[in-house]
Amino acid sequence: MGSTLRPGDTIGILGGGQLGRMIAQAASRMGLKCHIYCPDENSPAFEVSAEKTVAAYEDEQALTQFAKSVSVVTYEFENVPGETARILEQFVPVRPGPLALKVSQDRLEEKTFLSEEAATQVAPFIKVDNQAELEAALMELGGQGVLKTRRFGYDGKGQIMIRTPQDIEGAMDKLGNQPAILEGIVLFEKEVSIIVARGVDGTVKCYDPADNYHKNHILKTSSVPADIPEATAQEAIDMATRIVVALNYVGVMGVELFVVKDGDKTELKVNEIAPRVHNSGHWTEDACPVSQFEQHVRAVAGWPLGTPTRAHNVIMENLIGDDVNTWEATLLEPNARLTLYGKAETREGRKMGHINRLSPKS
Amino acid sequence: MGSTLRPGDTIGILGGGQLGRMIAQAASRMGLKCHIYCPDENSPAFEVSAEKTVAAYEDEQALTQFAKSVSVVTYEFENVPGETARILEQFVPVRPGPLALKVSQDRLEEKTFLSEEAATQVAPFIKVDNQAELEAALMELGGQGVLKTRRFGYDGKGQIMIRTPQDIEGAMDKLGNQPAILEGIVLFEKEVSIIVARGVDGTVKCYDPADNYHKNHILKTSSVPADIPEATAQEAIDMATRIVVALNYVGVMGVELFVVKDGDKTELKVNEIAPRVHNSGHWTEDACPVSQFEQHVRAVAGWPLGTPTRAHNVIMENLIGDDVNTWEATLLEPNARLTLYGKAETREGRKMGHINRLSPKS
Repeated sequence: MGSTLRPGDTIGILGGGQLGRMIAQAASRMGLKCHIYCPDENSPAFEVSAEKTVAAYEDEQALTQFAKSVSVVTYEFENVPGETARILEQFVPVRPGPLALKVSQDRLEEKTFLSEEAATQVAPFIKVDNQAELEAALMELGGQGVLKTRRFGYDGKGQIMIRTPQDIEGAMDKLGNQPAILEGIVLFEKEVSIIVARGVDGTVKCYDPADNYHKNHILKTSSVPADIPEATAQEAIDMATRIVVALNYVGVMGVELFVVKDGDKTELKVNEIAPRVHNSGHWTEDACPVSQFEQHVRAVAGWPLGTPTRAHNVIMENLIGDDVNTWEATLLEPNARLTLYGKAETREGRKMGHINRLSPKS
Repeated sequence: MGSTLRPGDTIGILGGGQLGRMIAQAASRMGLKCHIYCPDENSPAFEVSAEKTVAAYEDEQALTQFAKSVSVVTYEFENVPGETARILEQFVPVRPGPLALKVSQDRLEEKTFLSEEAATQVAPFIKVDNQAELEAALMELGGQGVLKTRRFGYDGKGQIMIRTPQDIEGAMDKLGNQPAILEGIVLFEKEVSIIVARGVDGTVKCYDPADNYHKNHILKTSSVPADIPEATAQEAIDMATRIVVALNYVGVMGVELFVVKDGDKTELKVNEIAPRVHNSGHWTEDACPVSQFEQHVRAVAGWPLGTPTRAHNVIMENLIGDDVNTWEATLLEPNARLTLYGKAETREGRKMGHINRLSPKS
């Protein structure tokens, strides 16, 4: 499992969306080939990669052929089925490893790991499998909380805010009676995130934390430097480092953190981790010599990590749905850098591209 | 011929080497697709592009199909056969245009154009078609000169330095009796180059000039900023601008200039022009928000040019032949940015990649 790639070798990527596409673009720059595996035949990542496989994640024969054609496998999404990873691992390293997938696919496992193994603060949480357990859990957390499915939630989906008795009734039915957790409500001031990378050799490198602003539960902007005290920034770095070390992680990870003010004190609580390159790290592509995508490629290739220096201040803006129609105007802005994902169809809520607006480093 | 592309449209590129590859990478970032046309089935650019055609540049049927599948055609090398361009132009714009190809394919046409149409200084030159004309030309230029074939010369190939009577004998035989020119020897201090771009709307933008250092007649390093007086840098910009305006040019061009010291005076003479992205502009990829490759894509797509701001000082080093074996060491350098071209076979004199070493801007 200690394999190191050489230029000309091939990285296999599960998933063909914009994250896979940007990983492939970074890999090709360093002379590595990519083989994209994705069930969707219109995947944006196919257009920039040497090889592609269009097949289901459960197709053992296709997975075996894929694994035999590459030197390492990585992924652009955390919901890679465990069985998929197990099949691939018979042939090649899968990076980040299986523990990262297991932990990040299940909110209960994730919160337990974060608080017990990584010694980080999280919101209080209680396992909830049915309406009776929900009611008991609410008693314990003071009558309010956020009910979240343990698996497959993203962009605010699979969540119900419970503030009043009316919210409680039928709540588990609304979530399809899936296994869930109830989280205590955190009165956070804002969300920051940090992009951390760990190499095969155990080296850990962090980019500067970003201030994240969401709109309709979808990330809208990430601003760097984040407006937080230096000690808080250092605490974010320390927490992210503990997490990747505890996971024996290889690759880039996005760590989302709530900033909580308690009088004069500023504290951080981990919201969630994503075992992959992360939307809130897209600013690195233009503001840093080594982007999160190159960093991830270096890590999974067994190469030394790059220095995560930042050369500019930057605000990253996601282009969601019709936002993409501003592309022409953006090309005219002298300090704006436009990235489009090559998606044929614009849909409401779909991430179509992003803009990095640069300014002198402070 | 005034077509403007939209994201999702396809740029056709003649030539599948590293320049085509880097143009394709820049295009994909902005959501454009590329279709590479190259006779060599192992072309590095294929690996990063949505479509490819493996066919000869004389294959009218393949060219026609290619032209019908793209919105504009550009090229990575100046020796595109005139007939190839004429076939393509029946269907789509070819940018830069036919005049740029005609002029840059023939040293006699080039020097005549540069001195007469673009009002730039060049070394004295005389048309030479046979040994007798060579001897007459030498008389006129004081007995010394550089004999160069009019077509297909590069990296010092197709040139003979004539300094003594012994060099004269059989000189035209050595060049295969091809049509040639004799150029007066320019006692230049060094070579600089400038990357200039012109948009469909006539806007012209220049990057900072670079100091070029050659080894075995092949570019080894380009350093920016060039160590030349500010007035000389401005003169380089003015000359490059006159050239692209006189050619009604669309796209990026590399202009190589000799720096000649005459007492206290510093003068520039144009050595040659390349109607394409240029090796001496590879530094822009890491030192500028908008690289020469993105600038070329913007120009040929009919999009507004980007601002050619430079954020760092930089020395670009070509990795030629076995130089590429330093790739691992380069990954460890904190301020070095590595680009590899994905060429399977390392050969002596072959350009395998390059390094940009960044330092704070001066």
